[in-house]
Amino acid sequence: MADGLKNRGRSRNDMNERRVAVEDLTGTNLEHISNCSFDPEMASRNVENMIGVTQVPLGFAGPLRVNGEHAHGEFLVPMATTEGALVASVSRGCSIITSAGGADAIVVKNGMTRAPVFRATGIRQGAEAIRWVEGHLDEIRSVAESTTSHGRLLDIQPFQSGRSLYLRFVYDTGDAMGMNMITIATEAASMLIAERTGLEIVSVSGNVCADKKPAAINFINGRGRMVHSDITVPKGMVEKRLHTTVDAIVETGIRKNLTGGAISLSYGFNAHAANMIAAIYIATGQDPAQVVEGSMCMTSAENVEGDLYMSVRLPAIEVGTVGGGTRLPSQAEALRMMDCIGTGKASKLAEIVAATVLAGELSTLGAQTAGHLGRAHNDLGR
Amino acid sequence: MADGLKNRGRSRNDMNERRVAVEDLTGTNLEHISNCSFDPEMASRNVENMIGVTQVPLGFAGPLRVNGEHAHGEFLVPMATTEGALVASVSRGCSIITSAGGADAIVVKNGMTRAPVFRATGIRQGAEAIRWVEGHLDEIRSVAESTTSHGRLLDIQPFQSGRSLYLRFVYDTGDAMGMNMITIATEAASMLIAERTGLEIVSVSGNVCADKKPAAINFINGRGRMVHSDITVPKGMVEKRLHTTVDAIVETGIRKNLTGGAISLSYGFNAHAANMIAAIYIATGQDPAQVVEGSMCMTSAENVEGDLYMSVRLPAIEVGTVGGGTRLPSQAEALRMMDCIGTGKASKLAEIVAATVLAGELSTLGAQTAGHLGRAHNDLGR
Amino acid sequence: MADGLKNRGRSRNDMNERRVAVEDLTGTNLEHISNCSFDPEMASRNVENMIGVTQVPLGFAGPLRVNGEHAHGEFLVPMATTEGALVASVSRGCSIITSAGGADAIVVKNGMTRAPVFRATGIRQGAEAIRWVEGHLDEIRSVAESTTSHGRLLDIQPFQSGRSLYLRFVYDTGDAMGMNMITIATEAASMLIAERTGLEIVSVSGNVCADKKPAAINFINGRGRMVHSDITVPKGMVEKRLHTTVDAIVETGIRKNLTGGAISLSYGFNAHAANMIAAIYIATGQDPAQVVEGSMCMTSAENVEGDLYMSVRLPAIEVGTVGGGTRLPSQAEALRMMDCIGTGKASKLAEIVAATVLAGELSTLGAQTAGHLGRAHNDLGR
Amino acid sequence: MADGLKNRGRSRNDMNERRVAVEDLTGTNLEHISNCSFDPEMASRNVENMIGVTQVPLGFAGPLRVNGEHAHGEFLVPMATTEGALVASVSRGCSIITSAGGADAIVVKNGMTRAPVFRATGIRQGAEAIRWVEGHLDEIRSVAESTTSHGRLLDIQPFQSGRSLYLRFVYDTGDAMGMNMITIATEAASMLIAERTGLEIVSVSGNVCADKKPAAINFINGRGRMVHSDITVPKGMVEKRLHTTVDAIVETGIRKNLTGGAISLSYGFNAHAANMIAAIYIATGQDPAQVVEGSMCMTSAENVEGDLYMSVRLPAIEVGTVGGGTRLPSQAEALRMMDCIGTGKASKLAEIVAATVLAGELSTLGAQTAGHLGRAHNDLGR
Repeated sequence: MADGLKNRGRSRNDMNERRVAVEDLTGTNLEHISNCSFDPEMASRNVENMIGVTQVPLGFAGPLRVNGEHAHGEFLVPMATTEGALVASVSRGCSIITSAGGADAIVVKNGMTRAPVFRATGIRQGAEAIRWVEGHLDEIRSVAESTTSHGRLLDIQPFQSGRSLYLRFVYDTGDAMGMNMITIATEAASMLIAERTGLEIVSVSGNVCADKKPAAINFINGRGRMVHSDITVPKGMVEKRLHTTVDAIVETGIRKNLTGGAISLSYGFNAHAANMIAAIYIATGQDPAQVVEGSMCMTSAENVEGDLYMSVRLPAIEVGTVGGGTRLPSQAEALRMMDCIGTGKASKLAEIVAATVLAGELSTLGAQTAGHLGRAHNDLGR
Repeated sequence: MADGLKNRGRSRNDMNERRVAVEDLTGTNLEHISNCSFDPEMASRNVENMIGVTQVPLGFAGPLRVNGEHAHGEFLVPMATTEGALVASVSRGCSIITSAGGADAIVVKNGMTRAPVFRATGIRQGAEAIRWVEGHLDEIRSVAESTTSHGRLLDIQPFQSGRSLYLRFVYDTGDAMGMNMITIATEAASMLIAERTGLEIVSVSGNVCADKKPAAINFINGRGRMVHSDITVPKGMVEKRLHTTVDAIVETGIRKNLTGGAISLSYGFNAHAANMIAAIYIATGQDPAQVVEGSMCMTSAENVEGDLYMSVRLPAIEVGTVGGGTRLPSQAEALRMMDCIGTGKASKLAEIVAATVLAGELSTLGAQTAGHLGRAHNDLGR
Repeated sequence: MADGLKNRGRSRNDMNERRVAVEDLTGTNLEHISNCSFDPEMASRNVENMIGVTQVPLGFAGPLRVNGEHAHGEFLVPMATTEGALVASVSRGCSIITSAGGADAIVVKNGMTRAPVFRATGIRQGAEAIRWVEGHLDEIRSVAESTTSHGRLLDIQPFQSGRSLYLRFVYDTGDAMGMNMITIATEAASMLIAERTGLEIVSVSGNVCADKKPAAINFINGRGRMVHSDITVPKGMVEKRLHTTVDAIVETGIRKNLTGGAISLSYGFNAHAANMIAAIYIATGQDPAQVVEGSMCMTSAENVEGDLYMSVRLPAIEVGTVGGGTRLPSQAEALRMMDCIGTGKASKLAEIVAATVLAGELSTLGAQTAGHLGRAHNDLGR
Repeated sequence: MADGLKNRGRSRNDMNERRVAVEDLTGTNLEHISNCSFDPEMASRNVENMIGVTQVPLGFAGPLRVNGEHAHGEFLVPMATTEGALVASVSRGCSIITSAGGADAIVVKNGMTRAPVFRATGIRQGAEAIRWVEGHLDEIRSVAESTTSHGRLLDIQPFQSGRSLYLRFVYDTGDAMGMNMITIATEAASMLIAERTGLEIVSVSGNVCADKKPAAINFINGRGRMVHSDITVPKGMVEKRLHTTVDAIVETGIRKNLTGGAISLSYGFNAHAANMIAAIYIATGQDPAQVVEGSMCMTSAENVEGDLYMSVRLPAIEVGTVGGGTRLPSQAEALRMMDCIGTGKASKLAEIVAATVLAGELSTLGAQTAGHLGRAHNDLGR
């Protein structure tokens, strides 16, 4: 039994032996967990101690028309979730957006970041090191890029406090989310910098990256892809499909998303962007911990000549269409549903994510403004 | 085909028809998505437009000894992830913690929140309404609790800006995560308040809740369960198992987690808490969008008489052991692995989550301090 | 000369000797600094090494009608400033508010805070200490209040991360701003707590107070007095007096204060609240470093049935009408201008501050919406 | 009397008439306010409705040795304050720093910002406008700089959310603080941009500037001058002069400044930087409302081979040595004390401010670690 637990093999037999050992030790039956349809070796770069799979229910929202710079056409968006009503709500939003001609979507910025922290002897050495870095970007780039065939170093942004020095490396990682790639590249560059400036490397990640933490630096300056999406929904469509008015939705947008977000000092001025992002990320093999950054969405709602204008600003959509979880069978299938697998597809996926978030925001703002309260009304028998 | 897409049925046949329609429309083969081992009717309260499942690789970390107030003993912690090395790293941390006698863990606060936004005529009516609420808590509680057999209203906290009034309702939701439960309860209470004070309800959620957004109000005051966990690792164990020193880890803790978190104005002062939380949440049927709040972890590392003290403060662990995704077969199995299913188990689960986060923080801080850099060293051929 | 610099006396002769020493050492003539009209002994509790005074130009804004719970009537508000156009702009706002019937103002919360930080052995001792504190509030209060005749301990709010434990003491400090008073009271209470719980006192201020730093905890929960003020300005008055429209001001309120504040992740959603607060604080002997907290104002602007509704939410107005700088002659005169000196006046002063901030916000939002751009227009010769 | 209040003249007679009118209306005697030693016409660009001056007690701290890139030598630092013990405490810090050889200080960044907000028709027009701006920087610069002889446009940073577009203009304003200068320059540039892109100007300030509000964008990216200062104080000096130990101060630095700042989600990780900044700003005619940005200081304290290393990072020191309040007589005298008046002196002043903040932080951290508690000890008779 202990042998089973300590088995480090990757084959289906190894997986089964481990699972049986877990079942024995915990007195459980892991029948549904065992239901893995693919060769566990395929997941050897995605998990250790594998005992099977979690089956997350998968639905789709759409068709959703997107008029992006990379995503053109109507898409069925795969969403893996356990939250009832989410897919239905997003689908309602997709249907309205598609009826209104489709959502615009633009990737306005693209740069994945990793920020090692160094130890300096003080502010003077730190300032000198920063000047050295600024004067040797080409040399640093050459070392960093020697470790990767896809990553390109775009910029290095310095931050210093006393003896702590942070260099925020910004990369174009192509169609990979790219954290591993740029961590290796940044390690190599960091060693060069340390050698040449006398700084000491403390950690390859100094949290100014900032990965999987809600951080102002990403909200403001972006991380991964910064994406916008917007739509104008005609007044009549708002009233007929959402059972409320343009002005009511706008009021909810202001009092809830903006003012409520401000009162709680939130880094997310939206209704529930994280829901859509989490569901798509899980379905398509993205890193679900990066829902954290993804949640920092700003949603706007305005009355423009009587119609409803809505937009989302997503400063940190960190997605890939190669590598990571996208290689797994069910996740790859989900990506294929949107023709979003392989090279040249990451910006397309980012635009679809943004438009789907917009659909979810539209639907939920509509519901919170109008429909939901009815239920409780009934319960109270009025 | 369109029929298939529009099929709203819940049976396996309905699911299959929809999936075939999606396959036809998108020209894909969704074989692995189709691999659902349970009756899709079981997911009828978890998803719509179901076409199958996403298979997320599931490993386990542990055994992890937890000396909590609710969780006692050694646990195998299920983690669903696609990020290679995560489970191995957390397992290393678990092993060290267990060797060191186990992690303490305490749930110090418990309260799930929902904050409707009302429209007042101005600050005076708002202030009067707040006074009314404060004077009629029993009456409001009675209406709110009439809608639920499990939720108990603990407190109502008022926030106002001009004509916008927010009432943050705080509930004990027992062993359910409880958002649906308390939304209905809060709707009922809101109607009473509106009727008696003359306020108008704008939205049942005014974002002062704040659900699935990173918000200072939750970091400071907590949401769901606020949980602490800590451990002291003897100096020798740090050196032997983590291949680094106590002081080096403490330095990384200060320069990376604290100072780096400060420089980037983060709401998360940790290495990668979101990773552990996401993996457990997906494995056990929690809401993965609530990883957002979960990520607001503060990790500390200190040299205490030569040994390594480490802790995590998790202000917003929103978990349930009944309802939601916990009903799904593979998710329920994962909960059972830790004897964390059903009533009386949510605080236990929260403590295990906290101890697992601690394990992951310990291992990653150790690695970033010592080992990782070696790899790049090799690549550069030094 | 060196003797002069090192003179620690408080008399006018001492002051003059020091100033002459400074003049000699720096080769300057400090004639205007020497122009101190009062006996320097009066400032012995306000400054050391006194060499004279800074003469800050003092104007007044108003009359401003305030319909508060403590401030009733029309006030001339003293403002010490060097920023041209500020007093004129605020006066314009005062005039409009007074014409519109006066601003409402309410102090909704009152509690000054000090939060010592203790060292615990770990989360368990910390949690036990918190329980002890919660069970011994009366005993703690009795020790704390034994040090002061005016301060009353209202609450103690605990925060913990690992071995660091913060207890945020909340006091009613009457008409004093009260930091010194409550620091002494909190020191006494802290020693009791340390003795009884085994915690070690690290510092009487642990920055969870948080004094003179912009902090979410104060924005959300308040510090000193939380004050609201609002006004409805008729449409015609907006157009005639501000040369713009209600909708234009509302748009600026949303795009600038709310959305712009959100984009920059600000703790202040206002146009320039700090200007009014700084000018009144300097004029009336408040602590100008507390402009930091004062600046965390949220301003709202709405179109209500065609008229302009505006409000300010000021969560941290820390003012006194006894003690500190209010004892100084020119400062006391400024307080007397508003009948705001001595006991029973601090809430009145807080309401006047809030209404003055409202006046400044109204005027500047109006100007930024309409007038200012004209000037540049001319410069460009269009 | 009413005539007096409405007198808009600038002469001493006008000032006196207004003051008498205020005295009559309020029934007060403003004798000390009347004590203005200079011709009120000199303040005609600094205040309106002038009735006299507020006399703020002025002391000096120092001598303080600064080894900056602009400030070299020992300085007596003028501080206008009403907070007892502040000057004495800072002076103690100055004395220790000077004994330890002086503080290093570096201005690492310089850029004053103004960010107008425009209205776009949607994300697409906004993105096109941004591209236009990026492609026409020279043309925009030429228009902006045509309005000023001193300001130089360094950069324009775009931010967008839906129909709201913010362009953060960054300028070198020479030795002026420069807000007025760059507001006019930005207005001119904005009109060009609006004309060429079809955007509508909503407000010349869109709060992404962000002036006089605590904002993450300034903390991270800087505003005005970003300045660092540091010092190493030998162990023996810490013990003898601060009556505590290096390790005790380091612990307070970590538990109070860093961890306490994190727990309260502060934008200021320091003990009381705002105190020093406010006192110098008032003494030297800077804008005291900009203490808000100034307060966002990060202080570090480390044990470096047994000695105490301390630093401050001040991301937003907005000072001028020409224009604004620096023209006023007592303020100009204070600047002259440091040879900081006129052109070529602003960076010098910024470095002195930083070193003074460091002195105040050193002294207060020392006191909070050691001395203060003694007083309460006595009061309790132990």
